[in-house]
Amino acid sequence: MNETDAFPPRSSHPADDPETASEAVATESRHDEDDRLKPEYVSAVRDAVEAGDAERARELVSPLHPADVADLIELTPADERAAVIAALGDLVGGEVLSELNDYVRDDVIEEMEPAQVAELAAELDTDDAVALIEDLEAEDQQAVLDAMEPEDRAAIESALAYPEESAGRLMQRDLVAVPQHWSVGQVIDYLREASTLTSDFWEIFVVDEGHHPIGSCQLSWVLTCPRSVSVSDVMKREQTLIPVDMDQEEVALRFQKYALISAAVVDPAGRLVGMITVDDILHIVQEEAGEDILRLSGAGDGDINEPVMDSYKARVRWLLSNLLTALLASSVIRLFEGTIEQMVALATLMPIVAGVGGNAGSQTMAVTVRALATNQITASNTWRTIFREMRVALLNGATVAVVIGIGVTLVFSNPALGGVIAAAMLTNIVTAGLAGAAIPLIFDRFDADPAVASSIFVTMITDSMGFFAFLGLATLAGLTGSG
Amino acid sequence: MNETDAFPPRSSHPADDPETASEAVATESRHDEDDRLKPEYVSAVRDAVEAGDAERARELVSPLHPADVADLIELTPADERAAVIAALGDLVGGEVLSELNDYVRDDVIEEMEPAQVAELAAELDTDDAVALIEDLEAEDQQAVLDAMEPEDRAAIESALAYPEESAGRLMQRDLVAVPQHWSVGQVIDYLREASTLTSDFWEIFVVDEGHHPIGSCQLSWVLTCPRSVSVSDVMKREQTLIPVDMDQEEVALRFQKYALISAAVVDPAGRLVGMITVDDILHIVQEEAGEDILRLSGAGDGDINEPVMDSYKARVRWLLSNLLTALLASSVIRLFEGTIEQMVALATLMPIVAGVGGNAGSQTMAVTVRALATNQITASNTWRTIFREMRVALLNGATVAVVIGIGVTLVFSNPALGGVIAAAMLTNIVTAGLAGAAIPLIFDRFDADPAVASSIFVTMITDSMGFFAFLGLATLAGLTGSG
Repeated sequence: MNETDAFPPRSSHPADDPETASEAVATESRHDEDDRLKPEYVSAVRDAVEAGDAERARELVSPLHPADVADLIELTPADERAAVIAALGDLVGGEVLSELNDYVRDDVIEEMEPAQVAELAAELDTDDAVALIEDLEAEDQQAVLDAMEPEDRAAIESALAYPEESAGRLMQRDLVAVPQHWSVGQVIDYLREASTLTSDFWEIFVVDEGHHPIGSCQLSWVLTCPRSVSVSDVMKREQTLIPVDMDQEEVALRFQKYALISAAVVDPAGRLVGMITVDDILHIVQEEAGEDILRLSGAGDGDINEPVMDSYKARVRWLLSNLLTALLASSVIRLFEGTIEQMVALATLMPIVAGVGGNAGSQTMAVTVRALATNQITASNTWRTIFREMRVALLNGATVAVVIGIGVTLVFSNPALGGVIAAAMLTNIVTAGLAGAAIPLIFDRFDADPAVASSIFVTMITDSMGFFAFLGLATLAGLTGSG
Repeated sequence: MNETDAFPPRSSHPADDPETASEAVATESRHDEDDRLKPEYVSAVRDAVEAGDAERARELVSPLHPADVADLIELTPADERAAVIAALGDLVGGEVLSELNDYVRDDVIEEMEPAQVAELAAELDTDDAVALIEDLEAEDQQAVLDAMEPEDRAAIESALAYPEESAGRLMQRDLVAVPQHWSVGQVIDYLREASTLTSDFWEIFVVDEGHHPIGSCQLSWVLTCPRSVSVSDVMKREQTLIPVDMDQEEVALRFQKYALISAAVVDPAGRLVGMITVDDILHIVQEEAGEDILRLSGAGDGDINEPVMDSYKARVRWLLSNLLTALLASSVIRLFEGTIEQMVALATLMPIVAGVGGNAGSQTMAVTVRALATNQITASNTWRTIFREMRVALLNGATVAVVIGIGVTLVFSNPALGGVIAAAMLTNIVTAGLAGAAIPLIFDRFDADPAVASSIFVTMITDSMGFFAFLGLATLAGLTGSG
C-alpha cells in the first residue's frame, strides 16, 4: 500500500533537513492528542476551497497520510465535499477512497465518472478495489468494470462472485508462493527478480505441484536462515487455512486466536487462491465487536454518516416492535386496575420494579452476547454460565430488594407494601438474570444473531414480570390506600 | 512465538505422511465449524484425567495449538482445572498461559510455585511475560521476579515501571535496529549471523547514532531489493512513532488508522526503546470495542470467568444507582396521583411512553458512543451529529406518536387520551434523541468515558420526561375516567 512513498531515493538525514523538521511541527498543529484532525485545520482547508484557492488547499493537505485525507473529507459537511475533492485533485487517490467511511465513499463515487473510479481502483489491491465498487448499483458497477484493464477486471469479477463479507472478498490475489524444493537462496533471488510482485507481504506460501499450500514461512525466517537451507525445512507446516467462503467474522476470530499476520485462502479443492493480511482484519474486528452494541439497541448500522432516512427506517422498526412489547406490559397492568384504584401509590412504584429489572437483564445480556461473540461459550460451559449468572442475579436481587423494601416501608409507613415491593424486586431481578442469559443462548443455538433480537424479548419479560409480580403480590396481600 | 515448531527439519510430503493425514481428520473431530472445541472432546480429556490416565490426556491434547489448550482449560470446570493442568504437564507452557483468560490465568498461576512461573515467563516475549505477572499480588510478583534470570528480570521490571495499559507494557524489547549507512546486503548478513535475535519481526528499524528511529523497512522491501542498495534509500521515513506512555486504546486506533504491522516505541527523548506488533493489538481492539457494550449496561468487566462476588460488586453498584434514578421517575408520578385517581387508565399507559422513549435514547446513545470510540466525532462535526440525531428522532417520534395516538383513540374511544399520548410520545422521543447524543458528548468533552455513565442519565431523563409529559398533558387536558 505504501509503495509510492516506500522507495523514494532520499539521502539526507532528516534532522538536517529543514523540510522534514518543519513538517514535524506542522503535524502537531494538525492533529490533537488523540490523532484526530483539529477543527482549525479542517476549517482552514474548507476556507481555502471556498475562497477558490485550490493551491493553498493542496498545500495544506499534501503532507497528510491518505487515512487523514479520508478523515478530512468525512469531517467536511456533505454539501462541501464535492468542492473539496475537486480542489484536492490527485491528492484524493484510490487509497484515500478505500479509507473513507462506506456511506461517504458511496456519495463520493456516485459523483465520479466510471473511468475515473476504474483508474482509482486500479491503484489498489484486489480486496480494496472490491470494497470500492461492491456497493455500487449494478449498472454503475458494470460501467466501472468495463472501463478497467481486462486483468484487473477479471480479478475483481472473480472476487465479486464470492458472497458479501466472505473471505473471497477480503483476500488479495497478489501473493508469493514457491515450490517446496526451492532453497532459501532461490526464494530470495526470485523475490529480487520478480519486480511485478506486490511489495507488501509478510509471509511466503510453499505449495505442492497442485498449488495446494503445504506450509508458510515468515519473511524473518527466510532472512535469518542460510541461503542453502531448503524452504521445506524452514516453513511451518501447521497452517491455519481459510476456506474462501468463510464469513469474515470467523476469519477475524481465527486471526485473533492464532495471532496470524497473514493466512492462505483455499478453494473447496484445497488450492491456494489468495491471501488475507491482518491489516484488513483490524477493521473487521473493530466493526464486528462494535456492532453488538448497536444491534442490541436496534440502532441498525449506527453510523453517523448514514443518510437520515436509512437510520430512520432501521430504528423506527425497532421502536415499533418495542411499542408492541410495551403494550403487552401495559395489558398486564390493566389486569390490576382495581388494585391500583384502591391504592394509587402502586402506580408510582411499579415502574421502579420494572426498570431495575430491565437493567439487570441488560447486564446479563451484554455479558452473554460478548461471550458468544468471542467464542467463549460453547456447549461445554453453557449451563455453567447460566448458573453463574443466576448466582449473581440472586445476590443483586437480594441486595436491591432489601434496600427498596426498607425504603418503601419507612416512606409509606407500610411494612406490607415494603415486603411486596422487595419480593417483587427479587423475583424480577432473578427472572431478568435467567432471561438475559438464556435468550441470547437460545438465539445462538438456532444460529440467529443473539445481538439482534435479544433485547426486545428481555425487556418484554422484565417489564411484564415486574408489573405482574408487584401488582399481583399487592393484590394477594390485599393492600389498600389505608394500609 | 512459533519458534519451536518453525524449524523442525522435516522432509516428507504431508500427503504421503500418514501422521499428518490422520491429524487432519482428528482436527475435524476436535473443533466445530466455528473453531471451538467440541464438548465431546473436552469431556474425553476430562474423563481421561479423572480416570488417572494422564498419558491418554496428553495424547489427546498434544496436537493442539497453545491457544486451543488455553480454551480447553477455560472450558474445564474451575474445580477440575488443577488436575487437568497437572496431568498435561509441560503441554501447558508459557504460551498457553499467555493465551488464557485473565481470571482463569490468575487462578492457575496462584497454584504454581514462583520458580515454575518464572520458568514459564522466561519462554515468552517481554510483553507476554509482563501480562503473565502484572496482576499478581506484590509479594508473589516479587517472588517470581527473584526466581528469574537477571536479564529477563530487568526487562520485566522496566516494563512494570510503565503505567498499566500503556505502550510500555505492550511493547517487546527484542527488535532489529540498524544504522542508516548500512546496505541491504549488510542487513541480511547481520540477520543471518545474529542467532540470538527474536525470529518474529516484520519490519526493521533504522536509527541514527543517538538511537532515534529515522525510518523503517518492511522485510519484503529488504528482500526485493538488490544487496547494494542503502537501507536509507529503501526505508520509509514517514513513521508512526508510539510514545511509551500512550494508552493502549490510542495505540490500537493508530494501528488501525495507518494499517500498521509493527511500530517503534520511543521514550520522551525520542529514543527507540521497543516495538509493538499487530498481533498484540488485535486482542486490544476486540476488548476495547467490546467493552462499551458492557460499560453501557453497567456490567463491569463482564467476563464469564470473573468470580461471582466481583461481578456482584460491579453490577449491584449500577443497579443501586439505577434504583435512585427510578425513584426520581417515581416521584414525578407521585406529583400526578390525583390525575391517576381520576383515570386509572393513565397508569396502564404511562410505562409505554417512558419505555419507548428509553429505547430511542439507547439507540442514539449507542451510535454516539461508538462514533466517539472510533474517533469519528471531533469538534468539527459535533453539532452536525447532534442535528442529525434530532432529525432522526423527529421522524421516529412522529411515526410512533401517530401509531400510538390512533391505537389509544380507538381502544379507549377517547380522542383526547389519544392526542395526549401522541404528544407525550413525540416529546419524549425527541428529548431522548437529544439526551442520547448530548450526554455522551458532554462526558467525552470532560474527558470522562462516555460509555460508563451515560445510560444512567439518559434513562433518568427518558423515564422522568415520559411520565411528566404524559401525566402533565393529561392533567392539562383535564382527562377523567369518564372522558
